[in-house]
Amino acid sequence: MDFTLAEIADIVCGEIIGDRNKVIHRPASFESAGQDEITFAGSGKYLKGLGSSKAGAVIVPGSTKEAPVNLIAVENPQAAFAKVLGLFYPRKAPVTGISPTAIIGRHFRCGDRISVGHGVFIADNVTIGDRVILRPGVVIEQDVTIGDDVEIYPNVSILEKSIIGNRVIVHAGTVIGSDGFGFAPDKGKYVKIPHAGIVRIDDDCEIGAGNTIDRGTLGETWIKRGVKTDNLVHIAHNVTIGEDTVLAAQGGIAGSVTIGDHAVLAGQVGVAGHLTIGNNVIIGPQSGVVKPVSDGLVVSGSPEMPHKLWLRVQRLIPKIPELAKRISRLEKAEKK
Amino acid sequence: MDFTLAEIADIVCGEIIGDRNKVIHRPASFESAGQDEITFAGSGKYLKGLGSSKAGAVIVPGSTKEAPVNLIAVENPQAAFAKVLGLFYPRKAPVTGISPTAIIGRHFRCGDRISVGHGVFIADNVTIGDRVILRPGVVIEQDVTIGDDVEIYPNVSILEKSIIGNRVIVHAGTVIGSDGFGFAPDKGKYVKIPHAGIVRIDDDCEIGAGNTIDRGTLGETWIKRGVKTDNLVHIAHNVTIGEDTVLAAQGGIAGSVTIGDHAVLAGQVGVAGHLTIGNNVIIGPQSGVVKPVSDGLVVSGSPEMPHKLWLRVQRLIPKIPELAKRISRLEKAEKK
Amino acid sequence: MDFTLAEIADIVCGEIIGDRNKVIHRPASFESAGQDEITFAGSGKYLKGLGSSKAGAVIVPGSTKEAPVNLIAVENPQAAFAKVLGLFYPRKAPVTGISPTAIIGRHFRCGDRISVGHGVFIADNVTIGDRVILRPGVVIEQDVTIGDDVEIYPNVSILEKSIIGNRVIVHAGTVIGSDGFGFAPDKGKYVKIPHAGIVRIDDDCEIGAGNTIDRGTLGETWIKRGVKTDNLVHIAHNVTIGEDTVLAAQGGIAGSVTIGDHAVLAGQVGVAGHLTIGNNVIIGPQSGVVKPVSDGLVVSGSPEMPHKLWLRVQRLIPKIPELAKRISRLEKAEKK
Repeated sequence: MDFTLAEIADIVCGEIIGDRNKVIHRPASFESAGQDEITFAGSGKYLKGLGSSKAGAVIVPGSTKEAPVNLIAVENPQAAFAKVLGLFYPRKAPVTGISPTAIIGRHFRCGDRISVGHGVFIADNVTIGDRVILRPGVVIEQDVTIGDDVEIYPNVSILEKSIIGNRVIVHAGTVIGSDGFGFAPDKGKYVKIPHAGIVRIDDDCEIGAGNTIDRGTLGETWIKRGVKTDNLVHIAHNVTIGEDTVLAAQGGIAGSVTIGDHAVLAGQVGVAGHLTIGNNVIIGPQSGVVKPVSDGLVVSGSPEMPHKLWLRVQRLIPKIPELAKRISRLEKAEKK
Repeated sequence: MDFTLAEIADIVCGEIIGDRNKVIHRPASFESAGQDEITFAGSGKYLKGLGSSKAGAVIVPGSTKEAPVNLIAVENPQAAFAKVLGLFYPRKAPVTGISPTAIIGRHFRCGDRISVGHGVFIADNVTIGDRVILRPGVVIEQDVTIGDDVEIYPNVSILEKSIIGNRVIVHAGTVIGSDGFGFAPDKGKYVKIPHAGIVRIDDDCEIGAGNTIDRGTLGETWIKRGVKTDNLVHIAHNVTIGEDTVLAAQGGIAGSVTIGDHAVLAGQVGVAGHLTIGNNVIIGPQSGVVKPVSDGLVVSGSPEMPHKLWLRVQRLIPKIPELAKRISRLEKAEKK
Repeated sequence: MDFTLAEIADIVCGEIIGDRNKVIHRPASFESAGQDEITFAGSGKYLKGLGSSKAGAVIVPGSTKEAPVNLIAVENPQAAFAKVLGLFYPRKAPVTGISPTAIIGRHFRCGDRISVGHGVFIADNVTIGDRVILRPGVVIEQDVTIGDDVEIYPNVSILEKSIIGNRVIVHAGTVIGSDGFGFAPDKGKYVKIPHAGIVRIDDDCEIGAGNTIDRGTLGETWIKRGVKTDNLVHIAHNVTIGEDTVLAAQGGIAGSVTIGDHAVLAGQVGVAGHLTIGNNVIIGPQSGVVKPVSDGLVVSGSPEMPHKLWLRVQRLIPKIPELAKRISRLEKAEKK
């Protein structure tokens, strides 16, 4: 599927600097883009490389006025490139309809043009919206509600009473609505605390592969609008995650934590139970957060500390042996 | 479903202080409980808040004699509340029977009132007890034995020869009996070591969602009675985990580790191979355990150290830059 | 199934020192091996214990000439023992054929003697080689290619266009080809970056249970020949992992990382995005790698440092409180 620069510029609302009739075969990375390919340069490093680019066209910020290569100037080159990828590689929706090997319970309500794959199980009292895609092997337990334009990838389990909004994507192997890890110690053993709450995932969330999101003990585990989680993320019972917050791979959020809007949690982060993490907080990789974090702070380390302090601390950790030697020398000098 | 305080007190073996005819609509958290709701106060913090509680009733320890709210006094308020949750939200067992879309192998032996869900696969020579629930998408490979009153959630894989006790719960997406990570280095490549052992999970265990529990190379990976694991826990080949030990989310236990009874491993802990961890050990979050830990110790940090020492260490880690400056100043002062 | 030492020695190309007609019933661990059992002694610790071994036979290195127990001397005892395990416990291939409950798409090409289990889904344009085993619940999306002698365990999802080589094993619950975690920030929200690349897994790889391997944004996520991953490993988009590299459990490799050949990553390691890790690198457990690592280095810690330095650092971390006290004392002494 080929497109001219004029067609592409139209879709990304960009301004062409160069040959509007140039035909593009496919998108490519900045380093590899050849003469029939389009790429993007979002930051200084790439913009400096424009002179040597062999790309057929480069999507650049509006501030770039000229280069020895065709340009499309836009407000946000990376977001524009995402649109270009969608143009060249449109998502192939599977055939609509319900596979004869799927089983559907009583009181099923569904919108138009749904696609229910091979072997899918839908229990009683499930509602799904328009254009929902349930890939093969998906299990939807009873009383689940799913909005419009949702895609659930293979072998996902969505357990009873979960509520999924519109335009949500859930990647393969993920579990939504497992019981929280709650036990009452009693005479040296553990009594299971029944989990009667639910998981609620709002519009425009994308949940990675192999996630586990526990239901509330009572009330909700609530993933708000626009949240994105990477793979193998664990979210415990009664956690709330604010709008447009992103959680990188293998993060673990313990029970009853509240995270604000627009926060960013890097990979392998752990957050201890019952903490409140503010809006716009950034948490560095492998951090262990054990205290509340106020709005706008950037923290790192285990336990967490201000990121700038952590940068100094982590430079000094390899120097601890040297510091110890210097203390010993001072002690020896003192005795003389 | 409503219950009077008298009915609830009867079930939790508690003593009512207040109106025994009070009707309760549902359980709730301490903070949110309103006048038709019941909650519990297990510790000082909540007991101090009794005066301002708007709850219809609060379950409290026997030592609490009076409050401006209806009380049910019991020995263990949290365990009693767990029972109350079970009363209001009884577990809905699915319809008994075997789904016509399940496939069952030869020499299948099963107890009464089992429920085998849509698409379940049961290979040859499998035995399952009374009232076992296999949710949709479960795969049980050959020669597996499962006890009574076991519930296996959707898309769980239980591989050949695994032995599961009574009253075990396995949450969705978990894998039991995968091959251990064992390879013999040979001329720069790796020769796979066949895994001929099994996984054995004793009575009353609860295994979280997305766990991976490897079979023994030879012999058993053995999860003893009453063990509880949270989500995304990894247990390698030939590990033994003692009775009533709990493993929080994302912990990883390397091959041939032995953990004692009543231990507690917090989230994201790693335990190196072949170690012995004693009874009643507590391991703090994100710890990396590289040496054996004796009975009753509390350890934290990576590598682990006594927890009290770790508390002092972690307070000083952010002060390393300051310590380094103080050393430099001492050195300068010395030269004068 | 019994074998004589002569038969076993033949298979492992070993030299018998002792009774070549001795009959062996089964393999066992060194500690537990009894008189009808065979075990191996690969290193000094075990070789020193030969005198007290009750084993029917012990596989030893060629340098061992004599012991009060039957020996089979070989070049690589552990690799030989792996062969012995395969001899006593041959892998049971399931019945060949395609389960009537599997669904197979259009343009399916397959080799001889394949086994397609219950409920398997194979989308359009899939190619699989000879003797491929797809266990129950496996989902293969469209345009996937799989080589010969591949075994895919239950409930694995292999998403569109993935390319799997020969003799690859994929353990249960794993996801291959999920979208990478890529979003373009745009006016406070995140625009999804479509992932048009693929996952390519070369010959002789073994992928653990519960792994998540993302497809490239463009181009490939490439797992080269002989790579072995343990359970719950996360590999992000556009990562390249070199030949015969091993990744222990719960490791996380961020986007666009390149790892060389014959590297070893211990458990719970994190590698930050876009880094290059050289050939023969060893990374210690729970390390957080934030800078490139050159060929042959051994690193540990978070952030990573030379392993020998880390050994000194980790011995001193518990002594930081003492170091701080010594600094304070020096300061006090100075003031006198």
